[in-house]
Amino acid sequence: MADVVNEREAERPWEELVECVESSNAAGLSEILDSLTPDEQRFAMSRLTGEEQAGIVELLDPAAAAELLEILPESQAVDILEEIPPEIAADIVEELPEGIGADFLREMHKAETEALLAELDDPEEADHLRERSAYEWDTAGGLMNESFASFSEEASVGDVLTDLGTKAEHYSDMDVQYVYVVSGTGVLKGVLRLRDLVLTPRDRSVVDIMIASPAMVNVSDNFETLRRIFEEKEYIGLPVVDEDGELVGVVTRQVVREATSDHQTEDYLHASGILGGEELRSMPMMARCGRRLAWLGPNIILNLVAASVIAAHESTLESVIALAVFLPIVSDMSGCSGNQAVAVSIRELTLGLIRPHEYLRIVWKEGMLGIFNGLVLGIVLGSMAAIWKGNLWLALVIGGALFLNTVVSVLIGGCVPLLLKKLKVDPALASGPILTTCTDMCGFFLVLSLASGFISKLS
Amino acid sequence: MADVVNEREAERPWEELVECVESSNAAGLSEILDSLTPDEQRFAMSRLTGEEQAGIVELLDPAAAAELLEILPESQAVDILEEIPPEIAADIVEELPEGIGADFLREMHKAETEALLAELDDPEEADHLRERSAYEWDTAGGLMNESFASFSEEASVGDVLTDLGTKAEHYSDMDVQYVYVVSGTGVLKGVLRLRDLVLTPRDRSVVDIMIASPAMVNVSDNFETLRRIFEEKEYIGLPVVDEDGELVGVVTRQVVREATSDHQTEDYLHASGILGGEELRSMPMMARCGRRLAWLGPNIILNLVAASVIAAHESTLESVIALAVFLPIVSDMSGCSGNQAVAVSIRELTLGLIRPHEYLRIVWKEGMLGIFNGLVLGIVLGSMAAIWKGNLWLALVIGGALFLNTVVSVLIGGCVPLLLKKLKVDPALASGPILTTCTDMCGFFLVLSLASGFISKLS
Repeated sequence: MADVVNEREAERPWEELVECVESSNAAGLSEILDSLTPDEQRFAMSRLTGEEQAGIVELLDPAAAAELLEILPESQAVDILEEIPPEIAADIVEELPEGIGADFLREMHKAETEALLAELDDPEEADHLRERSAYEWDTAGGLMNESFASFSEEASVGDVLTDLGTKAEHYSDMDVQYVYVVSGTGVLKGVLRLRDLVLTPRDRSVVDIMIASPAMVNVSDNFETLRRIFEEKEYIGLPVVDEDGELVGVVTRQVVREATSDHQTEDYLHASGILGGEELRSMPMMARCGRRLAWLGPNIILNLVAASVIAAHESTLESVIALAVFLPIVSDMSGCSGNQAVAVSIRELTLGLIRPHEYLRIVWKEGMLGIFNGLVLGIVLGSMAAIWKGNLWLALVIGGALFLNTVVSVLIGGCVPLLLKKLKVDPALASGPILTTCTDMCGFFLVLSLASGFISKLS
Repeated sequence: MADVVNEREAERPWEELVECVESSNAAGLSEILDSLTPDEQRFAMSRLTGEEQAGIVELLDPAAAAELLEILPESQAVDILEEIPPEIAADIVEELPEGIGADFLREMHKAETEALLAELDDPEEADHLRERSAYEWDTAGGLMNESFASFSEEASVGDVLTDLGTKAEHYSDMDVQYVYVVSGTGVLKGVLRLRDLVLTPRDRSVVDIMIASPAMVNVSDNFETLRRIFEEKEYIGLPVVDEDGELVGVVTRQVVREATSDHQTEDYLHASGILGGEELRSMPMMARCGRRLAWLGPNIILNLVAASVIAAHESTLESVIALAVFLPIVSDMSGCSGNQAVAVSIRELTLGLIRPHEYLRIVWKEGMLGIFNGLVLGIVLGSMAAIWKGNLWLALVIGGALFLNTVVSVLIGGCVPLLLKKLKVDPALASGPILTTCTDMCGFFLVLSLASGFISKLS
């Protein structure tokens, strides 16, 4: 391992890449890139500034540039396409698989997208890409692969096999587990399984062995729908049709899996306060600062709101200064308990194990757990307080506050994601701050008001 | 939507399921289950206690039980298999696809696993399952599908096609994009693409058209290796061989994708303090409490450590009670900033954009960002303090502390995941608590020691 690393260090291929760009040595550039695995290429690119990355892509021939963009993190590829001249970007997009080109355009700024589309040689393709990138990325229209093998109802099994054979190259990059039978107007009529084709006399008509009125999805079907269909049936891929029933693409089980994984990544980033998609340290510093502040800004306000509770009880604090030690502990521990409940609710929503209206179930399941865990944590923290200050009343106040606040936190943490889901707000994004603010306020209030209740015993 | 929900409510199929179990009405049970989609089945099961779930699985015939377990969350299926009598569990496992059976056994407690294996009719299968479940779930051996189509070097193209045809049923549930050519001893010799088979005269020998010395992976290859191979090459599936080069299974691109997605889910749960895999609210309350406390316990200790810093500065607090209001804000805001850095580091590690030794890069990239964001946040919070108390020195202390602590937090947050990765500790699991403790301690210390420095100006 260590050796590999040092060796890499020795190489530092990204420096050579930059040199090639500076000396506009296109041949050398492709040579270095070809000598690297996709992983190494991605790593090398991540070591360069946006300008340097753009320079490399500009210098490569469109096909090679397209290959490179395909292996980069999407956000990085998009930044590059926005950075380079639209006419060059257009040539590259023409080389990309249509789906991926559309994915990039979807993420680009409106102006850059239009500039790029205007440069495409084929206006039809431009319209098509515009249309395609208009679908949400996780709908059937956004996820579908538009290259598929389709044949007319008149074709014979022999015709199909011969065509598949002669055009083997052309089909090699698509999933030909199935081939499709369409009417003259392109309306989907049936599906043929390659296996059946192989085992049928070649003079038979495809219509005889096709699966008529096959399962299909509509371009506008959303991710939830796709996830369910592929979960319920063992399809490898499904035909995608437009409003008129015309076959426009194929969505595969694999691409839906990838989308699921992308959604989970997004959840994780959002829950950690990273907005606007992936952040890579190769991105411009100001962009990174801005996007992180977009999350921190609201949080500082919420924190001030919560802390105002403390300000309102300064007199109590003044007389029992030890409380200041426990305020952060109570609020942080409750936050932890609440976050666990949030995570479980988000998972149960994802797995379809809970419906957005089942608050009662949450209250019951989390309430019981909160009471138990709250007791345990309250007793632990209370004992610490007692040992430290030798004051059982202090122990009672601190322990009691943590107990009560733990119950509150798991209830809020469990319910908030359901509420947000109903409001069509991303639970992973908003649950944390809402939870923390509530639990902080409540925690501070409990500690300080309980304390003021027993103030005579504490000071 | 609402209607659908109410309708569901009306149904409450899980109650009927329980009734069937109580009246041990097997026929009725299967009938109800068949009337539900997998999503509805999973939802219904999630509404029942472990005993009720076990009762249902026990009453079903093994094949149906196996089908049901396959669609349940793994953790739930495992609990059920541990709950029911081993002889029944064994019959069910015999009905499961080998890979899934092994996945379940891997998660079961040692004793239950052995009890179950002892009940298998075929001791060979028992040994095989024991061996299979010994592989880590995310290695080639753990992910491979053991049903594949293989033929001897003597076979002709015709033989293969005929066999595929006659055994179509048998092959229907496996990926027959490729078929494999093996020696008499089962050593992998080559790979045949179905497409090539179709287009070759049937009397040719498979050896003529097979891809000789094909790409393959070893049973013990880990997830990282698999992820890279499938990233670097467009394989749909790869043959898996054991130490002797014998073909033992096939690992597909899809199954590797699924594993990636599972890893991301695990990251998210760990980062949220959910240990030991999925927690579902249908699990026994005590188990849920215990697992959550396993995470909260260490956290309360860490919190006490951090708070001890406050205890050490009580005198300062006493003279400037307002500080108590800002202590939680400074520590919480720094925690947020640090968590963003953690998330970015974990993502960059996953995407292979950063190596576990590149601390300098983190320090540079996060340091710059921390200085800028720290300034912004420090000025905001400082101004609030000034407005509230009309004391510029307080503003300076609070703002300065938040500025410095933000820089510290993003540095720690950025570096800790790399350190943990090197130490082979799950970054998603441990980064949070380590970060929070450090940033809390440092935040409290900064606020209170800065304050004691300017104590004359503050009180």
